[in-house]
Amino acid sequence: MKLQRTLVLAVVIPDITNPFFGGLFRGVEDGAAPGGYQVLLCNTDGSPDRQQAHLHSLIARRVDGIILASSFLKDPAVRWLRHQHVPYVLVNRFSDEGADPFVGSDDVAGARLATQHLIGLGHKRIGHLAGQSTVSTGVLRRRGFQAALAEAGLDVRPELVAESGFVEEGGARAMERLLSLPEPPTAVFAVTDMVAVGAYGLARGLGLRLPEDVAIVGYNDIPLASRLVPGLTTVHVPIHEFGSAAARLLLGQIAAGQATPKRVVYSPQLVVRGSTVAGPGLPADAPSRGMGE
Amino acid sequence: MKLQRTLVLAVVIPDITNPFFGGLFRGVEDGAAPGGYQVLLCNTDGSPDRQQAHLHSLIARRVDGIILASSFLKDPAVRWLRHQHVPYVLVNRFSDEGADPFVGSDDVAGARLATQHLIGLGHKRIGHLAGQSTVSTGVLRRRGFQAALAEAGLDVRPELVAESGFVEEGGARAMERLLSLPEPPTAVFAVTDMVAVGAYGLARGLGLRLPEDVAIVGYNDIPLASRLVPGLTTVHVPIHEFGSAAARLLLGQIAAGQATPKRVVYSPQLVVRGSTVAGPGLPADAPSRGMGE
Repeated sequence: MKLQRTLVLAVVIPDITNPFFGGLFRGVEDGAAPGGYQVLLCNTDGSPDRQQAHLHSLIARRVDGIILASSFLKDPAVRWLRHQHVPYVLVNRFSDEGADPFVGSDDVAGARLATQHLIGLGHKRIGHLAGQSTVSTGVLRRRGFQAALAEAGLDVRPELVAESGFVEEGGARAMERLLSLPEPPTAVFAVTDMVAVGAYGLARGLGLRLPEDVAIVGYNDIPLASRLVPGLTTVHVPIHEFGSAAARLLLGQIAAGQATPKRVVYSPQLVVRGSTVAGPGLPADAPSRGMGE
Repeated sequence: MKLQRTLVLAVVIPDITNPFFGGLFRGVEDGAAPGGYQVLLCNTDGSPDRQQAHLHSLIARRVDGIILASSFLKDPAVRWLRHQHVPYVLVNRFSDEGADPFVGSDDVAGARLATQHLIGLGHKRIGHLAGQSTVSTGVLRRRGFQAALAEAGLDVRPELVAESGFVEEGGARAMERLLSLPEPPTAVFAVTDMVAVGAYGLARGLGLRLPEDVAIVGYNDIPLASRLVPGLTTVHVPIHEFGSAAARLLLGQIAAGQATPKRVVYSPQLVVRGSTVAGPGLPADAPSRGMGE
């Protein structure tokens, strides 16, 4: 650990125009401000090369700590980062499970909640917009989805799982693939709310009604989720708290002068809105009847 | 101007969770990356004290330049900044008109477009959710609103103008005041899209239909505008370009070693969606029939 501090931290994320990361950044800033820190923001657009370039620049300018929310599974950039003697915390996504300081939610549990909700509503043919298999959230949420189906005695049909990436456009494309199947799903669990937004647009363009023709569940509970019409049923995670907890973990490492393997894992909670349950009791902007808000 | 560079710029904004500023930041980052710069992000939450504290910290850590999008009219912090020998650019809001390097849009022209659109649809009792009078965008958009009414021979009724601030909650409160008038407006021009989002929620909570019971126009054309149901008619400004142009202006000053009084002012354009014009031809996510997209 270096001796002289710059009082600068850095947050590395895919894209600040995704509302998930706006909330995360505010959490980091709020958690770091009491320590006198200001925070660099670096966007990778999901590119490993841009992530690596940002990390190299940040180490070169001797930032005091790095919060990384754009990592991949078995990420060479994270493995490199471990040897740079600069405190860091991974947020939301891990690289090698359990190997790094981490703040996130229990993705398997959250995906299981979402899927059990759809099963409980009577859906038997449930699709999954599955992110991508190179990112921990994609792999774990798919695992939770499949576990819930198996526990309910439902088949896991490979054709009902479509890789979507994590943003709107990929969500629309994956939804299109599922809806063009000979037997399309009656409900879909999307790996993120932004993927669900893409699915909304595609479904609406086809003239489908939500939830009567197809039900949709998202993940994260970004502010946009409650503004959609109908409101998006989703899995709530404490986005702002992800950021502030990561900042506190980072500041603790900086103060201690050494890395800690500490992990903070939140329990996600289901928030039920009109995209899965129709009815006048659930206008788009009414308080949720579910937990977690 | 200082001799040694840190290759760090800073962006000071009210709140990154407001989608307007996410797009702005990406523009700055994209404009600054070719020069090898990384960018600090500072949120003020609209507080002059937090803005001043951030600016003092940024000067103390010797950043190479500052982009400020949170300023007030006749802002003491901006007047102080002029004497710090660090390049800066104001974006979207000015402090003393014409006194600083600036990137923004013609707010009077944009507000006039929005108001003329409502007048053209036959509305005679038009309200304005007016931001706040301590910020240039609030003052200029109100001026454009009043100019359009006067040009059409319509009275400017003071009771139809309600200060709203610039975010959702203030928009809802101001809309509530207008709709509780003995003669409420049939249409409303909101100073920003986020204020319009607050007005949507309030109107929907009262069971009002858009646009039949009340028409709404926003300003900025954030991505959320086209996802609302009905889609939000708004004034399009090039948000990402605001950021990249400001970054280029800043890098030019850094390279030249001196401030330039240059101003970049974009022409806003109207985007017509379902919040003002009903009909099956305008689903929420269809391409706009207006200009600017």
